[in-house]
Amino acid sequence: MDNIKSYIEENKERFLEELFELIRIPSISSIAAHKPDMYRAAEQWKKILLEAGADKAEVFETEGNPVTYGEKIIDPAKPTVLVYSHMDVMPVDPRELWNTDPFEPVVKDGKIWARGADDDKGQGFMHAKAFELMVKTDTLPCNVKFMIEGEEEIGSPNLGAWCEANKEMLKADVILVSDTGMIAPDIPSITTGLRGLAYWEVEVTGPNRDLHSGLFGGAVANPINVLCGLIDKMIDEKGKITIPGFYDDVLEASAEERAKLAKAPFSEEAYKEAIDVEELAGEAGYSTNERTGIRPSFDVCGIWGGYIGEGAKTVLPSKAHAKISTRLVPHQQHEKIAVMFKEYFESIAPKGVKVEVTPHHGGHSYVCPIDLPAYKAAEKAYTDVYGKEPVPVRSGGSIPIISTFERILGIKSVLMGFGLESDAIHSPNENFPLEQFFNGIDTIPRFYQYFAEMGK
Amino acid sequence: MDNIKSYIEENKERFLEELFELIRIPSISSIAAHKPDMYRAAEQWKKILLEAGADKAEVFETEGNPVTYGEKIIDPAKPTVLVYSHMDVMPVDPRELWNTDPFEPVVKDGKIWARGADDDKGQGFMHAKAFELMVKTDTLPCNVKFMIEGEEEIGSPNLGAWCEANKEMLKADVILVSDTGMIAPDIPSITTGLRGLAYWEVEVTGPNRDLHSGLFGGAVANPINVLCGLIDKMIDEKGKITIPGFYDDVLEASAEERAKLAKAPFSEEAYKEAIDVEELAGEAGYSTNERTGIRPSFDVCGIWGGYIGEGAKTVLPSKAHAKISTRLVPHQQHEKIAVMFKEYFESIAPKGVKVEVTPHHGGHSYVCPIDLPAYKAAEKAYTDVYGKEPVPVRSGGSIPIISTFERILGIKSVLMGFGLESDAIHSPNENFPLEQFFNGIDTIPRFYQYFAEMGK
Repeated sequence: MDNIKSYIEENKERFLEELFELIRIPSISSIAAHKPDMYRAAEQWKKILLEAGADKAEVFETEGNPVTYGEKIIDPAKPTVLVYSHMDVMPVDPRELWNTDPFEPVVKDGKIWARGADDDKGQGFMHAKAFELMVKTDTLPCNVKFMIEGEEEIGSPNLGAWCEANKEMLKADVILVSDTGMIAPDIPSITTGLRGLAYWEVEVTGPNRDLHSGLFGGAVANPINVLCGLIDKMIDEKGKITIPGFYDDVLEASAEERAKLAKAPFSEEAYKEAIDVEELAGEAGYSTNERTGIRPSFDVCGIWGGYIGEGAKTVLPSKAHAKISTRLVPHQQHEKIAVMFKEYFESIAPKGVKVEVTPHHGGHSYVCPIDLPAYKAAEKAYTDVYGKEPVPVRSGGSIPIISTFERILGIKSVLMGFGLESDAIHSPNENFPLEQFFNGIDTIPRFYQYFAEMGK
Repeated sequence: MDNIKSYIEENKERFLEELFELIRIPSISSIAAHKPDMYRAAEQWKKILLEAGADKAEVFETEGNPVTYGEKIIDPAKPTVLVYSHMDVMPVDPRELWNTDPFEPVVKDGKIWARGADDDKGQGFMHAKAFELMVKTDTLPCNVKFMIEGEEEIGSPNLGAWCEANKEMLKADVILVSDTGMIAPDIPSITTGLRGLAYWEVEVTGPNRDLHSGLFGGAVANPINVLCGLIDKMIDEKGKITIPGFYDDVLEASAEERAKLAKAPFSEEAYKEAIDVEELAGEAGYSTNERTGIRPSFDVCGIWGGYIGEGAKTVLPSKAHAKISTRLVPHQQHEKIAVMFKEYFESIAPKGVKVEVTPHHGGHSYVCPIDLPAYKAAEKAYTDVYGKEPVPVRSGGSIPIISTFERILGIKSVLMGFGLESDAIHSPNENFPLEQFFNGIDTIPRFYQYFAEMGK
């Protein structure tokens, strides 16, 4: 593993140039107009994999966006690593809050600034370059497969079926994913848990048209007032979600587990300061890390209705809308939660309005045992590069496809994330520190080495 | 009064053409980009008044939008009518719900369809044409003054000062206003009360940037969830507004008054059907007409925050906003209510967010006694044209400037409205029936006649 650092040093500039080519493709999966960009991104990934040393690479059609698959089989008797990443990114609005063009990456203050710089073009690309490094320095110790999808940010609606149809091709011993973060640049960590997700769009309709708020106000149910009331009823004063049955399947963490989680370095003051809030809020009886790690949550991601332009318009609107998500924990089933919320939300609406709840995508939670050989290999790889053993942490985020992989392919995933909280993924001014990017390329080949040494 | 109907019949087409010229000017006062249109509308009104027979007409500058003033003094010893109208209109969004261009009026199904067709270009223009009719047929029985402002839809912030500065010029015996409606084409009515108004914009700030709803959800106060909770707390389960002190100055209607109000023809079934709601809602213990006529109301006119684009974005947003209005009744003071709400709303916000309430315009309520001579003259004029005596009604709407006129100029207003509920003012597809438009032109000269006969 001696030549890893020198290879990276010699090729730094080229790595960035190639990554930037990928970032410049505005592959926003949730906006239909960007469909052609999804195909451009898929072709770009095919090129990246072939140039890095793949024996073959191909763009596969799905019912939705394409998947790029590539592989290098050095010896069928050796272990196989399946790398998963996604080529799609989140929307960029509010665009006016970006300091630079989200799709024209710039390097400033030691960071790459762009949509996808971290999530997940930056992190996915580290694997391509680590693979290239191993091929070019003749140190690849096992077989490698790449599966890069285009619908992660919209809940991977078609990847499950694609995996089902390509089970044989995707056979592997472990799935390696860099789509998560670590605690801090000097506190390496590996994500061992992900929350599940259920997401809905809600429409409340009052009168059949916008009404004059003077002539009708006080006599007709206002759909915005009603929507606010319904949303407010979803969480009680102790921060508990009130949907009947919501907590039924929640796996309560043991006192021992909670004690272990409490050991992860965490400064509430620094956390509050980073996001500039005076006080944190959440479910009573749980710490901040527990609230995001082992407890479900309920957030309105978007709300709109009535007059939202400049100045004052006195209107009693016809409609109000919200986008609502819950994060789920083992063993909550997102399909069950999706129905539960819809039924409850619609049932408590007053008769003066009509309420329609439309479920979006959902996903199950995931847990990676820390005695898994691949986890141990990852642990050693991080320790080499960061000088200390990584902490196992439960993330509040969701990568629904990870539990789907386990179900369909029967393969566990190891979440080797290099993102930082300050990377602002899904937000304006997403960024990725160069140091984390190059450390990632440094860490990954070490994982392969340790993993291969453990044998099949 | 014999030649009123024939004059209208002969000039019908021209009246419409001239009105359409006025409507085509998109004079939206709440949108700064339309400032030049306000000046175009003011000049157009000057032309309208001069062509109708005014001795002089002038566009006056104010701190905001211009005011057009015109007059014809036939004899200083005779009574003087001051006509008030406004040249500005409401915004047109949601634009996609309009069946035709809001600023290109069309006549269809016996109605004029356009923004301002009723409120208040159509109704204001009736006065110009009634004035022309009296001048051209040599039947003008008294002095006339016109005051057409450009900021009614944003609360007339500058007209009070302008009146103050032009008190002498504006001296009159009554103010005549057509900016309200009547119950139905076959049930004439005159508005004898208007509600007051207080309007605010609210901003709730949580974290300093949009956060990933997975990584942070459950541990950080979500400003949309918080805003919904705050709004929901403003009205209790009996439909009462909870702001402390809010009802202190409300004039409770006597049993006698309520009995009188209950006599106005009203079909709850037809009302519900017209706006397509299954059930009405409001303050417990009051009828629908009371809820809009003699009781205050609380409506969210607009709300927005987080991701409101296509598809699903999992975000815990930084900010949430709402535009909120209350309608007030005698003797509530809008300045007092504005402060009351701001203090209460900000005080109940949890510490995890910052809340800022910015008051917009406000206005006082107004009551016109039904024994006022000018009211009696209006009553007779309506009876002539509609064949039955008009019903006095309390409107839920607000024309804040009306109470300002009383305070500054010491003149009572008579609200001779010809709009119908189906005119959809402030909404998409605003319209004004031709029959009401021409009946208005027919009714107004009769008012002048009866009013002049009563002497000064």
